[in-house]
Amino acid sequence: MPQTDPARLTADLIRCPSVTPEEGGALVLLEKLLSEAGFQCTRTDRGNVSNLFARWGAKGHAKTFGFNGHTDVVPLGDKAAWTMPPFGAEEKDGFMYGRGSTDMKSGVAAFAAAAIDFVKDTPPDGAIILTITGDEEGDAVDGTTALLDYMERTGEQMSVCLVGEPTCPDEMGEMIKIGRRGSLTAWFTVTGVQGHSAYPHRANNPLNAMVRLMDRLASHKLDQGTDHFDASTLAVVTIDTGNPATNVIPTQAASTVNIRFNDSHSGASLTEWLQGEAGKVAAEFGVEIGIDVQVSGESFITPPGALSDLVSASVEAETGRKPELSTTGGTSDARFVKNHCPVVEFGLVGKTMHQVDERVEVAQIHQLKSIYTRILQDYFA
Amino acid sequence: MPQTDPARLTADLIRCPSVTPEEGGALVLLEKLLSEAGFQCTRTDRGNVSNLFARWGAKGHAKTFGFNGHTDVVPLGDKAAWTMPPFGAEEKDGFMYGRGSTDMKSGVAAFAAAAIDFVKDTPPDGAIILTITGDEEGDAVDGTTALLDYMERTGEQMSVCLVGEPTCPDEMGEMIKIGRRGSLTAWFTVTGVQGHSAYPHRANNPLNAMVRLMDRLASHKLDQGTDHFDASTLAVVTIDTGNPATNVIPTQAASTVNIRFNDSHSGASLTEWLQGEAGKVAAEFGVEIGIDVQVSGESFITPPGALSDLVSASVEAETGRKPELSTTGGTSDARFVKNHCPVVEFGLVGKTMHQVDERVEVAQIHQLKSIYTRILQDYFA
Repeated sequence: MPQTDPARLTADLIRCPSVTPEEGGALVLLEKLLSEAGFQCTRTDRGNVSNLFARWGAKGHAKTFGFNGHTDVVPLGDKAAWTMPPFGAEEKDGFMYGRGSTDMKSGVAAFAAAAIDFVKDTPPDGAIILTITGDEEGDAVDGTTALLDYMERTGEQMSVCLVGEPTCPDEMGEMIKIGRRGSLTAWFTVTGVQGHSAYPHRANNPLNAMVRLMDRLASHKLDQGTDHFDASTLAVVTIDTGNPATNVIPTQAASTVNIRFNDSHSGASLTEWLQGEAGKVAAEFGVEIGIDVQVSGESFITPPGALSDLVSASVEAETGRKPELSTTGGTSDARFVKNHCPVVEFGLVGKTMHQVDERVEVAQIHQLKSIYTRILQDYFA
Repeated sequence: MPQTDPARLTADLIRCPSVTPEEGGALVLLEKLLSEAGFQCTRTDRGNVSNLFARWGAKGHAKTFGFNGHTDVVPLGDKAAWTMPPFGAEEKDGFMYGRGSTDMKSGVAAFAAAAIDFVKDTPPDGAIILTITGDEEGDAVDGTTALLDYMERTGEQMSVCLVGEPTCPDEMGEMIKIGRRGSLTAWFTVTGVQGHSAYPHRANNPLNAMVRLMDRLASHKLDQGTDHFDASTLAVVTIDTGNPATNVIPTQAASTVNIRFNDSHSGASLTEWLQGEAGKVAAEFGVEIGIDVQVSGESFITPPGALSDLVSASVEAETGRKPELSTTGGTSDARFVKNHCPVVEFGLVGKTMHQVDERVEVAQIHQLKSIYTRILQDYFA
């Protein structure tokens, strides 16, 4: 039987200009393709976001393999700097160019192609669910979350799930992600007393407290890392005052801190720590320090076991590389899926994601389909 | 003989809208008045700045008393917040309102009136020089400096000089200024390596070095004060990054530091210290730290002696207060005059200077003229 070409499907998806949260035709294309292959498709759009749920096989089957991915892409950035059409999917020297070529239209194409051909060639005793969202790069409020809400509402259940995001730093097959650190952002506002630079004793410079607090936070070792996690990190990303007058001590200064934390912390424990540190500095300097905290994700992990063994074995068989089980990196929709079922992430090399001239090695798309196919074969064997 | 009314002269000057560096008619008015009183007047305008040099008596006389002042004023600020016309010189409850009413059209009016009446009533064996600039509140590059350049070029010489700036914090007669701290501004730029907040080890956050350096500088005690000076002070006046992205570690951050320093430092010694501190932090954090330094004035002092005794005695005789000899406050043109001859500053209460509804107590203008008159009498006695 003719096989589904994942590179051609990637190209078709790249040509859909689905800059987040635009659907751009990408999910319509996938819905058509999957429906023709016998998948039962439901659009679970919410707000201005389009989402596609697709299942092959019986609903509620105890052995249901899930794939998750997204078709939305980040904006082009400096459009003039692109040397290839960003929605052209043109090939040069073995690479296919375009926004979303690595992140992650190739991943979606590879798992869709693998699933379509697998159920056609060797229909398993089980089910396959594909959840594909049009809002991973944006707010991610009405994306995978809406798909999971739909599934809960209608009794759909994945036994395990593989998110097809790019996971390999440099070489294909290097890395599987089995969890993620949590992420917290804190906005600080230090308020002192304005005054003349010549009379600092009559003022109370908020910057003195600000630099002390930021130095304390930036110098603090949150932990040494845990079994499956790197050490937690804290970055002071901005400090701003906006005072143009060299003879004026400002009233207020603001800063923003971003923390990526492992399983030895929680959003709540870190918030408490930040409030404590701010309180100490506020008392020492006699200033007011306000904090707004947003926890955009708690840390999570699918401990090494059946699912990671399955994916590792397939990756090693196809690439010759034994992948590292990692919890590094930024957030992905795995943070939502982990509440539903065990989840790991594996995809191709993500080097050019979010950059100008984003591109994917065409051979890697085929290799990724082979890996996903082998995972399905082994899972249902 | 009819006496010159310093309050009326102040009102006339307030009605000249001489927002720096506009002449506004103020120097023209004074030139006319002083010429009629027998002063030899020369306009020493330079650039877009107007300046007035006026001498009564013989050029180069060994006993030449100088007065220095300015007729330019700072802008109105929030014009709508003024409850009285800012160039109206209207009186209410014993106060005369207007921009420049304290800083320092009243001071100029008082010393001009004192000098005019003094040479008319009791012509001294000596000379009186008035140097009045239209640019003290602005860049001060073509103001008193231009007057002093003119004097050097033409062999004009003051034996001593009194700058008529407001010097009293709360009560008339409280304070004479016999020197000033120096002022230095340093602009720091810390350059690190940009990166993703999730991978701070792959970046080099310039803010970590910035907060450490600023904390070191702000915590450092420069000195404990000296015989005639308060302790030197350092104020971090702004830190700015301008990074709106919480997931990005910025490349660069900037800050500005202002130092007011006494005679245990110089612009050069402080510059060296700042460079040394920046160098240590740069080495510790592996970042680049650039510094631009501008020394806007070295510290200076006219040690207590004949001139301050003369002024103190007159102040005490007229007000009943023994004035403090101080070196506090921001810069004034005394920083230029001190290269020419011994200089002290004495004027009225400066509480409302640079503020909305700037105003002067009318009685204080008359009192100030009396003090200046007594100084002249005692000096030439």
